[in-house]
Amino acid sequence: MTTAAARFGTTGFGAENLPYASFSVAGGDRRLGVRLGDQVIAIAALAAQVGTPRLDDAARDAVSGPDLDALLAAGHTAWQPLRTWLQEVVTTDGLDTAVESAATPVADVQLHLPFTVADYVDYYASEHHASNIGQMFRPDEDPLKPNWKHLPVGYHGRAGTVIASGTDIPRPKGLRPDPSGTPSFGASRRLDIEAELGFVVGGSAPEGEVTVARAGAEHLFGVVLFNDWSARDIQAYEYVPLGPYLGKSFASSISMWVVPFDALTDARVEPPTRDHELTAYLDDSVDGPWGLDITMEVEIDGQVVSNPPARTLYWTAPQMVAHMSVNGASLRPGDFFGSGTVSGTEVDQRGSFIELSWGGKEPLTLDNGHEQTFLTDGQTVTLRGTAPGANGSVIDFGECVGTITPAT
Amino acid sequence: MTTAAARFGTTGFGAENLPYASFSVAGGDRRLGVRLGDQVIAIAALAAQVGTPRLDDAARDAVSGPDLDALLAAGHTAWQPLRTWLQEVVTTDGLDTAVESAATPVADVQLHLPFTVADYVDYYASEHHASNIGQMFRPDEDPLKPNWKHLPVGYHGRAGTVIASGTDIPRPKGLRPDPSGTPSFGASRRLDIEAELGFVVGGSAPEGEVTVARAGAEHLFGVVLFNDWSARDIQAYEYVPLGPYLGKSFASSISMWVVPFDALTDARVEPPTRDHELTAYLDDSVDGPWGLDITMEVEIDGQVVSNPPARTLYWTAPQMVAHMSVNGASLRPGDFFGSGTVSGTEVDQRGSFIELSWGGKEPLTLDNGHEQTFLTDGQTVTLRGTAPGANGSVIDFGECVGTITPAT
Repeated sequence: MTTAAARFGTTGFGAENLPYASFSVAGGDRRLGVRLGDQVIAIAALAAQVGTPRLDDAARDAVSGPDLDALLAAGHTAWQPLRTWLQEVVTTDGLDTAVESAATPVADVQLHLPFTVADYVDYYASEHHASNIGQMFRPDEDPLKPNWKHLPVGYHGRAGTVIASGTDIPRPKGLRPDPSGTPSFGASRRLDIEAELGFVVGGSAPEGEVTVARAGAEHLFGVVLFNDWSARDIQAYEYVPLGPYLGKSFASSISMWVVPFDALTDARVEPPTRDHELTAYLDDSVDGPWGLDITMEVEIDGQVVSNPPARTLYWTAPQMVAHMSVNGASLRPGDFFGSGTVSGTEVDQRGSFIELSWGGKEPLTLDNGHEQTFLTDGQTVTLRGTAPGANGSVIDFGECVGTITPAT
Repeated sequence: MTTAAARFGTTGFGAENLPYASFSVAGGDRRLGVRLGDQVIAIAALAAQVGTPRLDDAARDAVSGPDLDALLAAGHTAWQPLRTWLQEVVTTDGLDTAVESAATPVADVQLHLPFTVADYVDYYASEHHASNIGQMFRPDEDPLKPNWKHLPVGYHGRAGTVIASGTDIPRPKGLRPDPSGTPSFGASRRLDIEAELGFVVGGSAPEGEVTVARAGAEHLFGVVLFNDWSARDIQAYEYVPLGPYLGKSFASSISMWVVPFDALTDARVEPPTRDHELTAYLDDSVDGPWGLDITMEVEIDGQVVSNPPARTLYWTAPQMVAHMSVNGASLRPGDFFGSGTVSGTEVDQRGSFIELSWGGKEPLTLDNGHEQTFLTDGQTVTLRGTAPGANGSVIDFGECVGTITPAT
């Protein structure tokens, strides 16, 4: 007698993690799955096999969909019992055979976008990133605008171009600034990554005004890795005065395994000390701490060049939800928040190539001899992330991958 | 013998207009309807009654939904035959009784959001508006940024808070600039309207790169009135450097009747002369002209204070679609574009109160004696719009209404 966790659970994807995905096998229907080790378990099939005494009808219905949409809509009262049931099943002696019968090796499945993105808001929550960008874009001013420490600066991105990890990224075209003063149209010459966390939100708040405490307890479903590909030249020309648009909207990739927020209890840490008093609705000392000790990894063409530390983010996920909704804006299942590029204090903790190469002026020499500034066609960027999990385990976020293809 | 158009068609809503809506009667199911005079006709019921030899299966299925979603997804090959069939039915002698049996007086129905908003992009297409705002927000600079005449400046808004005309607008709260330098949290003191056109888009372009010609021929489904309510104080504090967010995202109201783009053939006019050469993908001389001679009306508490002329918009609807997608961003059914505030050259053609009262410094005295600057609780704003239609008719856009309620 043994348990599924003992048989299949490997470092990073043990019973303490159990991230969700939408998967299919050999062109079959998409199903909601949960990962254990190198296996993906079809949740509805597992439920049929072992029974779900812990789950109410809403939760049972929610796991039979093709992706997370129904579960996100069912709300937090469905999430915790589902996770508890899954953890019990994979750690109960003798249930390993039942789990095995609902499992497929990850290597044999196709993964799909795990949920339908409702609205997508990208924040700018890393002080080091905002300072670096400010120094480069506006060298004659204070790098941080006066509002930066008073509210989490953010803007809406394009929900329809949030795409699955592994999708190729054609180099975008647009109007780019030119020394002549007249902009020219063409393929971006300054294509970049932004290594971010993405927060997946569920439940509904039709009237908005979600508090930090309620955001944390009821709406934060899970976390993914997020690469908000950016064409710096297009962005620099277009972004005044209404913010980034085409410089960002062509593609934003997410990792395919949604790590439950509940798997990150041991990763929760104090955010950086705030040097301005926070207005009441942004006070995140309640039920905290809300910082997340997730260490990211930026790999280009097989070489790790940076380890952005998410624990340095100035603004936390519940603050992002509270801010979005304080004006009465509604929250919907599938709402999605990017943290903004994660950059630490050190050069090798920067989450974008514009920072790593300081605007292209200080190229990084890769082990293969390439002088790396912005991305060239054919280059592949992979984000990874890990966090401390319960019982001394590691929580692995999998990968967020994209390869640049030439402009069409 | 007579026709439905002769019996029911009244000025503004004759056979030349036939705008679509989602409606229900006495709490019943939502249905897709088309307006003729003061009647709304259930399209599926009419089809069952008189037959639809002109429509293929896709179009027939698309009209049986509760709103425009299926029709927008069916694409342009369904739109023209549907409109032609509807025009034939309402102008055929003897079919008036069939139409009557599928009709309900507009006064007796409830109207609903006519489509599900996919992504919403707001542009800034009026030169006079952009100049006015620039002068007020950045008095020491050129009012137009260097990019303004080279590309249609725009940004993504919140799709989930595009709401139905008639919904109350609670005054939003947020951080507002304060003379002390430290911002304070509270209800907006500078709540405003933005009188805009909204463009409803259908069909799909997964790879983006929709040309101006294709945008016009295949993707522009219809036009609505759009009030992008704006909290100017919240916006002014938050918007650097990533653009408007909470100052706009609390609510944006649309009129309930979607006027088909095909009803506006006689309203198409040359846009203003462009004084910079347009890059190829923005050249809208193809299959044009693409300007729209729609005259809007801004009424507050029963008094018309402005008539913004949409024909003065510098950027046209097909340019907005072409620009959005030129970087490879996909287009989805239900994508929605705001024109930005429409303001003409004259004071009484301005589409916002920040312009009408010049930042609050030059109040408008209403007939009731009220010194109008920004909106006060209890005030009702109504947008209206008309355009020339075929056969000397008038195309009426109905109303886009909202009443300010006190902050919660």
